[in-house]
Amino acid sequence: MTVVKSMLSEGALRVTGTALQETLVDLLGLSLVGKQAHWNIVGPRFRSVHLQLDEVVATARAHSDTVAERAAALGVSPDGRPETVAAAFSLPAAKDGWLRDDEVVDLMVRTLEAAAGRLRERIAATAEPDPVTQDLLISITADLEKQRWMFAAENS
Amino acid sequence: MTVVKSMLSEGALRVTGTALQETLVDLLGLSLVGKQAHWNIVGPRFRSVHLQLDEVVATARAHSDTVAERAAALGVSPDGRPETVAAAFSLPAAKDGWLRDDEVVDLMVRTLEAAAGRLRERIAATAEPDPVTQDLLISITADLEKQRWMFAAENS
Amino acid sequence: MTVVKSMLSEGALRVTGTALQETLVDLLGLSLVGKQAHWNIVGPRFRSVHLQLDEVVATARAHSDTVAERAAALGVSPDGRPETVAAAFSLPAAKDGWLRDDEVVDLMVRTLEAAAGRLRERIAATAEPDPVTQDLLISITADLEKQRWMFAAENS
Amino acid sequence: MTVVKSMLSEGALRVTGTALQETLVDLLGLSLVGKQAHWNIVGPRFRSVHLQLDEVVATARAHSDTVAERAAALGVSPDGRPETVAAAFSLPAAKDGWLRDDEVVDLMVRTLEAAAGRLRERIAATAEPDPVTQDLLISITADLEKQRWMFAAENS
Amino acid sequence: MTVVKSMLSEGALRVTGTALQETLVDLLGLSLVGKQAHWNIVGPRFRSVHLQLDEVVATARAHSDTVAERAAALGVSPDGRPETVAAAFSLPAAKDGWLRDDEVVDLMVRTLEAAAGRLRERIAATAEPDPVTQDLLISITADLEKQRWMFAAENS
Amino acid sequence: MTVVKSMLSEGALRVTGTALQETLVDLLGLSLVGKQAHWNIVGPRFRSVHLQLDEVVATARAHSDTVAERAAALGVSPDGRPETVAAAFSLPAAKDGWLRDDEVVDLMVRTLEAAAGRLRERIAATAEPDPVTQDLLISITADLEKQRWMFAAENS
Amino acid sequence: MTVVKSMLSEGALRVTGTALQETLVDLLGLSLVGKQAHWNIVGPRFRSVHLQLDEVVATARAHSDTVAERAAALGVSPDGRPETVAAAFSLPAAKDGWLRDDEVVDLMVRTLEAAAGRLRERIAATAEPDPVTQDLLISITADLEKQRWMFAAENS
Amino acid sequence: MTVVKSMLSEGALRVTGTALQETLVDLLGLSLVGKQAHWNIVGPRFRSVHLQLDEVVATARAHSDTVAERAAALGVSPDGRPETVAAAFSLPAAKDGWLRDDEVVDLMVRTLEAAAGRLRERIAATAEPDPVTQDLLISITADLEKQRWMFAAENS
Amino acid sequence: MTVVKSMLSEGALRVTGTALQETLVDLLGLSLVGKQAHWNIVGPRFRSVHLQLDEVVATARAHSDTVAERAAALGVSPDGRPETVAAAFSLPAAKDGWLRDDEVVDLMVRTLEAAAGRLRERIAATAEPDPVTQDLLISITADLEKQRWMFAAENS
Amino acid sequence: MTVVKSMLSEGALRVTGTALQETLVDLLGLSLVGKQAHWNIVGPRFRSVHLQLDEVVATARAHSDTVAERAAALGVSPDGRPETVAAAFSLPAAKDGWLRDDEVVDLMVRTLEAAAGRLRERIAATAEPDPVTQDLLISITADLEKQRWMFAAENS
Amino acid sequence: MTVVKSMLSEGALRVTGTALQETLVDLLGLSLVGKQAHWNIVGPRFRSVHLQLDEVVATARAHSDTVAERAAALGVSPDGRPETVAAAFSLPAAKDGWLRDDEVVDLMVRTLEAAAGRLRERIAATAEPDPVTQDLLISITADLEKQRWMFAAENS
Amino acid sequence: MTVVKSMLSEGALRVTGTALQETLVDLLGLSLVGKQAHWNIVGPRFRSVHLQLDEVVATARAHSDTVAERAAALGVSPDGRPETVAAAFSLPAAKDGWLRDDEVVDLMVRTLEAAAGRLRERIAATAEPDPVTQDLLISITADLEKQRWMFAAENS
Repeated sequence: MTVVKSMLSEGALRVTGTALQETLVDLLGLSLVGKQAHWNIVGPRFRSVHLQLDEVVATARAHSDTVAERAAALGVSPDGRPETVAAAFSLPAAKDGWLRDDEVVDLMVRTLEAAAGRLRERIAATAEPDPVTQDLLISITADLEKQRWMFAAENS
Repeated sequence: MTVVKSMLSEGALRVTGTALQETLVDLLGLSLVGKQAHWNIVGPRFRSVHLQLDEVVATARAHSDTVAERAAALGVSPDGRPETVAAAFSLPAAKDGWLRDDEVVDLMVRTLEAAAGRLRERIAATAEPDPVTQDLLISITADLEKQRWMFAAENS
Repeated sequence: MTVVKSMLSEGALRVTGTALQETLVDLLGLSLVGKQAHWNIVGPRFRSVHLQLDEVVATARAHSDTVAERAAALGVSPDGRPETVAAAFSLPAAKDGWLRDDEVVDLMVRTLEAAAGRLRERIAATAEPDPVTQDLLISITADLEKQRWMFAAENS
Repeated sequence: MTVVKSMLSEGALRVTGTALQETLVDLLGLSLVGKQAHWNIVGPRFRSVHLQLDEVVATARAHSDTVAERAAALGVSPDGRPETVAAAFSLPAAKDGWLRDDEVVDLMVRTLEAAAGRLRERIAATAEPDPVTQDLLISITADLEKQRWMFAAENS
Repeated sequence: MTVVKSMLSEGALRVTGTALQETLVDLLGLSLVGKQAHWNIVGPRFRSVHLQLDEVVATARAHSDTVAERAAALGVSPDGRPETVAAAFSLPAAKDGWLRDDEVVDLMVRTLEAAAGRLRERIAATAEPDPVTQDLLISITADLEKQRWMFAAENS
Repeated sequence: MTVVKSMLSEGALRVTGTALQETLVDLLGLSLVGKQAHWNIVGPRFRSVHLQLDEVVATARAHSDTVAERAAALGVSPDGRPETVAAAFSLPAAKDGWLRDDEVVDLMVRTLEAAAGRLRERIAATAEPDPVTQDLLISITADLEKQRWMFAAENS
Repeated sequence: MTVVKSMLSEGALRVTGTALQETLVDLLGLSLVGKQAHWNIVGPRFRSVHLQLDEVVATARAHSDTVAERAAALGVSPDGRPETVAAAFSLPAAKDGWLRDDEVVDLMVRTLEAAAGRLRERIAATAEPDPVTQDLLISITADLEKQRWMFAAENS
Repeated sequence: MTVVKSMLSEGALRVTGTALQETLVDLLGLSLVGKQAHWNIVGPRFRSVHLQLDEVVATARAHSDTVAERAAALGVSPDGRPETVAAAFSLPAAKDGWLRDDEVVDLMVRTLEAAAGRLRERIAATAEPDPVTQDLLISITADLEKQRWMFAAENS
Repeated sequence: MTVVKSMLSEGALRVTGTALQETLVDLLGLSLVGKQAHWNIVGPRFRSVHLQLDEVVATARAHSDTVAERAAALGVSPDGRPETVAAAFSLPAAKDGWLRDDEVVDLMVRTLEAAAGRLRERIAATAEPDPVTQDLLISITADLEKQRWMFAAENS
Repeated sequence: MTVVKSMLSEGALRVTGTALQETLVDLLGLSLVGKQAHWNIVGPRFRSVHLQLDEVVATARAHSDTVAERAAALGVSPDGRPETVAAAFSLPAAKDGWLRDDEVVDLMVRTLEAAAGRLRERIAATAEPDPVTQDLLISITADLEKQRWMFAAENS
Repeated sequence: MTVVKSMLSEGALRVTGTALQETLVDLLGLSLVGKQAHWNIVGPRFRSVHLQLDEVVATARAHSDTVAERAAALGVSPDGRPETVAAAFSLPAAKDGWLRDDEVVDLMVRTLEAAAGRLRERIAATAEPDPVTQDLLISITADLEKQRWMFAAENS
Repeated sequence: MTVVKSMLSEGALRVTGTALQETLVDLLGLSLVGKQAHWNIVGPRFRSVHLQLDEVVATARAHSDTVAERAAALGVSPDGRPETVAAAFSLPAAKDGWLRDDEVVDLMVRTLEAAAGRLRERIAATAEPDPVTQDLLISITADLEKQRWMFAAENS
């Protein structure tokens, strides 16, 4: 079933579709991991980091929506089902149970850094095939790198 | 690591903790499935159901937060990580790829009905051990059963 | 035509459906009587009671919507048509023409007290068959009893 | 008990008072019928029409308040009690039980058309005796005819 | 100095301009008298009437602005200077010093009734020469007659 | 294809439909001309007039929507397509390229005056056939004449 | 009729009451003169000054309310009736008819300067008898002197 | 002086009234203690805990209002006077002078835990005599236990 | 433990600190007494005074926060604990149980008058040692004297 | 008359100016066509598509403003006059009279696809001469392609 | 070029103008230093202090505007240019590069203390020459001393 | 002290860091110069330009924050201290004292043009090393060039 006839050539579509699907998984995974830390964090910085994590989650959720709808707009069915996210998510993730505040801050630095690193590759890859998608990935990178800084500064 | 000393007896805590953890998985899974349908739906009722699904997602997200924080308040670490949700989610779920609008409506009726059925069992189970948790589960059930009715009426 | 398959047993559904339908009539009647008094009140307390009556009407309208949608969610068609309300409404009601402010305050005390009394019976009746409906009826009772107190205090 | 000494002559007052009282009954009846359809509608257009009906109800309620207070301002006690509305309401009305979406759309076209037709007669009748009331009836007619068009377009 | 060339004939302009200038004086006077009562009222209904008077003042100020700008739009310079208002204001007015609440309510009934009576004459006078101005005067009359009713009902 | 059965007689409908369609073209043309001036104005009053023109455009757009929907409500298909507006627009219009601020002010005085003059004829024409449409045209005229005054005062 | 027993000695009360009553007249007069200019201004700076005048009027109205209620709080009946304002107002005022924009700017500089000058005398006079009233007069002076500057800068 | 005739039997009223009065004292005391800590806290977590305490105070104030009005609605005069609160308050309280942040966090854990423990007893006690009051106490408990968790997690 | 090194000399600090601590107790006591009256008032003016009392409470609460934080800013630990308020509160206070509306109005006049009288002494006392604190006390006095007037006018 | 000296070379300016002017015409045309469909649509999806079209119009209007002001910022006079839009508009457009809902959905897919295709060419063309303009065109393309997907999904 | 003729004597103007200009430099410098710390802070309290610094900056910016406009209102040209601020700023300032959170807190205590100390001198100096300016400086001092307390408490 | 490990190579970081630091100085300097003009402007266009300058300042402040935080996110400490801004600021700047409105408009055209010219060079320089930073610089350029146009148009 083809829903939207794509305006991209087949090759351009393959590259762009892959970049969007991978970004979708990263962002949905990030939103779940961020909430996990939001609920399980303990330690003297509880309240401050608890609130900051909700900003990460809000950012991840908003961008995941835009990314998935961009895929659909190009004619590629996005896949954000639980089993897909669990199978494909490869960023640093939370361990089981309560998490100390410094562990959480450290985890977020690493997760956001990995996510941004992967996005930078996709920015390069999509420049040619679809500058509209590239522009969206640039915005997401800017937001995640800003979040990474704030956790890194907190961890210094 | 015990964070919050529970005010419930051990037995009451086990029942209540299980009810909350299972509800958390159901709601997080529902939020992912709802978004999946939101992005992949096609057909003449696209816009109407697309918007309705975002209300389901907003409801599921808001309640998942309350449920997880209730578990933490009782001293039980909530688990909403991608791998946990994928492994434990057992409600009717979305298939791969684009979804016709009547398929989506039918899926939501079945998923919401299953979720509500499981909640009713937990309402009965928690009445004695923790009426505060029971009251929360009652609110969630009211919202999910209202959503179920609206999809069912749409499907008549 | 069955629209929503009920999750309640037949007996539970009969009790719950009756409680909701009777409450719907009480609330719609109350909203009409409250507006009637809002428009026809005269006397030195005109403005104060005129405004207070609009709060009663807003409460009654909001709860009537929730009650009717709860009935639908259980598979019971709610009936709020003019002829049904007129035939079934049995709370103390407004007489024809202008109403003195003390008459209005006295009427509202009696109407709200009768409505709350009937709700307390339905709270008892629905506890077993449907705690979700019971919880809704408890909320309505709290609001109506608060309104009753404010008119009673005004009448002392 | 005369509350407000009218500024109209006796004849003008009789015509204007009748027009306002009849409009009040039409609008209160419309608000109840609109809610009845809002709760009982089923079919593939459920959500779209369910929402549209709440706009009709909001319009009818707002105008009923203005109409009743206009009557009071002229010295005429408005009557919007349940028994009065039931006895005097003569527009096409909802049947018992669930309602299919096309039935609802058709009903609303007929009800709104009848209401607008009756308002046009009252616009003509009040031009001379009270242009202030006429101006109010014109506003109501504009709103109801707009609603009629939207249901009629939906039914084409 | 002619600023705006009027679109009305000379005769129509004279009638309309006079109607607007007289209404401006009535409304500015009413706003000052309303504030005077707002500040000087005493008695058990102080708070209720104190607040109601501010609604009268807000209504009078808003309409005075529209009326003056309508005159300007027709090419007639509006005159709302203190000396003009004082010289031309002829509605029932407040006496010096503190005012008992029943005196205030009675004064407002008489002032608003006189203002509405004069407006009804201007509605008739402007129907032919300028229906745009007439429509504006109708709106003002509706508001002032509603206020008159509320004070009259309070005084019954 | 007849969508909405009109409540007006054939003759009344012809007059009213023509008035509405002509007004629609005037308002859409005005909104385009207003934006053209908004973008191309130069001179020391740039900012002040630039902002004022956006108020004209907002007014024209809002009224064009109401006018077109009123036509539809009467059963007349409104025509606001680019080619129709270009062919039928007959008010004073903007020349090509940058526009000096005094030219813009002068243009707006003339365009608004012409638009209001045409509206006054339609107010007269629709009084009998459809007072609901007439009331709408009166509101538009009031707004455009107010705008005309403000530009004229600016140009004095 | 004494309403509020004053907490000030007789002499302090006389000074303070006079300062407040004179300020009340200045501010009410200023609000009327500001509106007069708002409506009658013509010239290339029409829009800019028209808007600025409404800020003067809003400031004057808000402060007049506080000043009058401060008088009442001290047990002094404030007098803001049309005849009192007209008789006692002594600041530079608007002439009859249309006003050129530079005349308006010049008038506002002079009126505000005179008002501020009189306020400075009252600030000195009330320092001893009532610092609460003095603080209020200081706030008004700050606002009026800011307005004076903006008109003066406009006039340079 | 009996103001509101209670709908509860004498025995039910005694139990419910006591539960509400004790809860009122706990909540008013908590609001005062929370503010005391809000003002006197020092230490590296000053800002974070200072803000969190205001959420506790807002929660306690809002619930105290509902609890007192529920008592009044049942016909029991609530007592929240300073001397009553001081005499009856028995939760862990703040010592004199500045408070270190870890002391504050520890105090809040203990105070909230004690308050929640007492509420759980009242939930059990009111289940039979007044489910409406019980439902209110359940809501308060949920909020206080959530606050307790957040301070406990901060203290880990 | 000295937290904030004061910028005042020792003598100035003693005077200012005492003024702030006494004002804190007055305001916290006033907020509790105001709520007590808000809940226990009965009589025909119930609603009007019930609402007015909440404005007193909101004013008292907001100022108590500012006063306590001003003390802290000067290096003085504020004391607003229940036992301190109960021991030190010396304004006219509410008796036990239900309160008639005229009793409440009379009580508020006396309480606010006493509070304002004490504030006036503190205004004089702090003028020299700390004009910043004096300015704050002046604002509080203005608000309390305004409230006093409104109750006194209601009682006339 | 040169208003803004461009910062681009002559060649770069020609390419960029053309891209902006063509985009302006496309967007203004799209806004008129979108409104035409908004008013003339009939069929069972009336309400849903009627509302969706207003989102298209809002998007087109907002972007047309940005595009025209970008042209002006570069020193190129934008041309959005009715005659220019009618002459230059070349996207698929609406036929005369009422439009069935499926016709409208199909039309919007084709119009938005054509508009996006043309924008992609301009994105390529402006990359070198003016990356600021290119970035703006990318944003517009993202929005129009999202709209295209939603209509296409609706049409599947 | 003299813009605003001052209402102060020459001597009074010199004192007041100097106080305002010095305060302007302090506040602009504080706003730049506060932002510098907002961007460069690192350490476990990063988020909490990062947010608090933005409140300092917002306070400093708002007051700098009021201070500069007060100078202008008195006829004194305020000077807030980069070179002036750099040359005249004499409060404790930020060093180059990243700043540890405790360094930042300490810096803010010292900077705010110095700023408040200088303001207290200006409060004394302006009391006689211009109480309006003095009142403004008192408000600024209250805000800065409150900020100083919050950083000092954080540093304890 | 390295806070954030940069994801860019050393060379890329040097180019990007320089571009961001220079932009930061330009924007902070622009915000100070804009405020200087906002306060010191005189002449007939005072109000219009006074308001427009605050939009420039708001734009410059918002972008300076984003630019500085982008530098931090890349691991480069941003420097916005008064002495740095004064030393490095090289755009056309304001002279001492009052400024005539045409001088101000001319100054803003030149300052904004210089700022935009420098930004265009940085857009080219950062394209390769960091497209995320480039995208941010493009947004700033768009805003500053729009402001430049509005002042240039005002100056024509």
